Amino acid sequence: MGMTIAEKIIARAAGVDTAKAGEIHVVTLDYMLSNDGTTHLTIDKYNNLKNPHIADPSRLVWVVDHNVPCDSVKTAQSQKKMRDFARERGIDFYEGEGICHQVMVEKYVRPGQLIFGADSHTCTYGCLGAFGTGVGCTDYLYAMVTGKSWVMVPETLRFNLTGTLRKGVTARDVILTIIGKIGANGANYKAMEFAGPGLAGLSVSDRFVLCNLAVEAGAKTGLMPVDEVTLEYLEAHGRKPLACYESDPDAEFAEVYDIDLSEIQPVVAKPHFVDNLALVSEVAGTKIHEAFLGSCSNGRLEDLRLGAEVIKGKKVAEGVRFLVVPASRDIYNQAAKEGILDTFMEAGAIVMNPNCSVCWGSCQGVIGEGEVLISTGTRNFKGRAGDRNSFVYLANAATVTASAVAGEIAEACF
Amino acid sequence: MGMTIAEKIIARAAGVDTAKAGEIHVVTLDYMLSNDGTTHLTIDKYNNLKNPHIADPSRLVWVVDHNVPCDSVKTAQSQKKMRDFARERGIDFYEGEGICHQVMVEKYVRPGQLIFGADSHTCTYGCLGAFGTGVGCTDYLYAMVTGKSWVMVPETLRFNLTGTLRKGVTARDVILTIIGKIGANGANYKAMEFAGPGLAGLSVSDRFVLCNLAVEAGAKTGLMPVDEVTLEYLEAHGRKPLACYESDPDAEFAEVYDIDLSEIQPVVAKPHFVDNLALVSEVAGTKIHEAFLGSCSNGRLEDLRLGAEVIKGKKVAEGVRFLVVPASRDIYNQAAKEGILDTFMEAGAIVMNPNCSVCWGSCQGVIGEGEVLISTGTRNFKGRAGDRNSFVYLANAATVTASAVAGEIAEACF
Repeated sequence: MGMTIAEKIIARAAGVDTAKAGEIHVVTLDYMLSNDGTTHLTIDKYNNLKNPHIADPSRLVWVVDHNVPCDSVKTAQSQKKMRDFARERGIDFYEGEGICHQVMVEKYVRPGQLIFGADSHTCTYGCLGAFGTGVGCTDYLYAMVTGKSWVMVPETLRFNLTGTLRKGVTARDVILTIIGKIGANGANYKAMEFAGPGLAGLSVSDRFVLCNLAVEAGAKTGLMPVDEVTLEYLEAHGRKPLACYESDPDAEFAEVYDIDLSEIQPVVAKPHFVDNLALVSEVAGTKIHEAFLGSCSNGRLEDLRLGAEVIKGKKVAEGVRFLVVPASRDIYNQAAKEGILDTFMEAGAIVMNPNCSVCWGSCQGVIGEGEVLISTGTRNFKGRAGDRNSFVYLANAATVTASAVAGEIAEACF
Repeated sequence: MGMTIAEKIIARAAGVDTAKAGEIHVVTLDYMLSNDGTTHLTIDKYNNLKNPHIADPSRLVWVVDHNVPCDSVKTAQSQKKMRDFARERGIDFYEGEGICHQVMVEKYVRPGQLIFGADSHTCTYGCLGAFGTGVGCTDYLYAMVTGKSWVMVPETLRFNLTGTLRKGVTARDVILTIIGKIGANGANYKAMEFAGPGLAGLSVSDRFVLCNLAVEAGAKTGLMPVDEVTLEYLEAHGRKPLACYESDPDAEFAEVYDIDLSEIQPVVAKPHFVDNLALVSEVAGTKIHEAFLGSCSNGRLEDLRLGAEVIKGKKVAEGVRFLVVPASRDIYNQAAKEGILDTFMEAGAIVMNPNCSVCWGSCQGVIGEGEVLISTGTRNFKGRAGDRNSFVYLANAATVTASAVAGEIAEACF
């Protein structure tokens, strides 16, 4: 019986010939990512160990992205702890460079790798054919100390993509449509594998969001085979694959879905669940108070370009705050060069330094009671962006920008 | 006996022929500024009035600048209160446009006006020949309801400026040197008037910082006569003077100081007082953790240009966060056009949206225990930028940027 991509990567990381869904394997981790959400807790636990040591500091990547620059003395202290620890032990450390997953994809991830991250959206790295998954900070500590961990091989849901997206419809609409269909628990502890002829038409940025939001269906990870698009991206970023996998023709899938990309419509996830799906047209006219174009999910150059195309020559509606937050320094710099940031600023948007921003509702763009946010962020749970009685709609970059201009949820015209 | 500028402006605002230091006059206010620091308190008090009304909404200007975008549900609520109140009553309202004093100088202030602001640095408006002063929110409420207030005419300290600044020495060095000389209480309830032949060589941006920091010597306001430089600025911004005043030759000054600009050196205010003066060379080598180029005091285009000149082709030191925060949207846009923001980003700085940032240590760039910040901000009191056991050095844009590159306090070379 053949293997899925997930099984192949885990077999490689475990140093065995085969791995099957349901088995537990001890694996060597290629990278271990952590950010300022929990690293200070990991360090505290590390310092309580009897014989603290790190298996291989060169496999650790630490990124400050949740509060950049930091917003309180408390976060200043915890970031200082992280910064000092990383420097003393030669751990790659970033702050102000961008959101951890974007930094990982730009600078580290290679096809075939198995990567743990102390952040749920670590599932993103499948966009480059790697197996990434989120863990808590105690699991992270074990991995950091031993270089290893265990993983139960997930079953795979296979999504066969065909066709191409029409203008103004994005990969975000694809994954939100899928989550709307299978439900927020529809992929619990499973790998979501995206493949088929439709994949070739999707950029790494598109693929990023498909894998990134896999966890919103409960998935252990999102995965894809490696193709020309992947290899081109890797070459441009000076890296080579570790191993390029695709699922065998006789691999076993828990379920197979056929998705025709040409049929996907612009959608939103309504409050307060990612699977509470509606067409944009069904909620058009809903008054908004804030719009957010950013996050690891959709703060990339392609998203900014799309938004800029929508807003060029127009103005942000009176009474609406429109936050534009590039996902990394590279994206920011490139967007600046292309005049995109100017376009947003001239329209009255607030362009910010790369970070997680209001996606996680902690220190920037927090919304108050009764306020409505339309967002390219990752989640729309009750209170995610601020007050418990506020409302978050998730949508693509074009819809978010068109809504910022209209002052109410609106579909972008192309 | 002749009158000072302060006396003339107060006489005009009081509708009387003469005003003398020590007299109390009831004045009509030309503008009343308030920001998100205290406006929510003013609104609460307003709503408790028996017969709430606003004398003239067109004279009120409200600016959200302290937390932009807002950092917590609490600030989201208080900004919402401010936003809704302003919209319902036709009060000019800005958020994301810049720091209130920069916005006022760019869009409102006219020579000869008397302006109250619920912020201590309202003293800035003297850079355009207006009398601005800070008040608390109950005084603000009275002014808002009646359109009037009272003011005790201040004595004037006169600073006769001669000579010109050498490259790399700025108006910030002038005012810090003056404060170091007269002390942080040296101008308590007095007007600081800057005049003399040296004034002609100072731009509105230079003049801005002289008046802006006057309050750090305890001054009621900073003031200047109107000249060609002022008129040119006003014309470029589409405004005309209300009245152009200068002190009469026989006006009475509490004290007269002669300041030769060519003798001014680059200085710092050491922790924890603005008058704790030293030459940059005396503290060079002090290790820093963060550098801040921004604030109403020195986040203008001239400052950004100076910093960019220093950092061009260099990198921010390992382990240093360097925050660059333009003081307004106009400044941001112009700096972007000139490639200045690119220069900072490429050097590894964190370029942020216009706001007060770490100058007031609330929600951005807050520093932790034992950390050292070098800053173009307004104040360096204990705990001003974060932890009570942290340290703030105030310096000019060139020194701050050179220090960000060196990782320690350093004098810029030109």
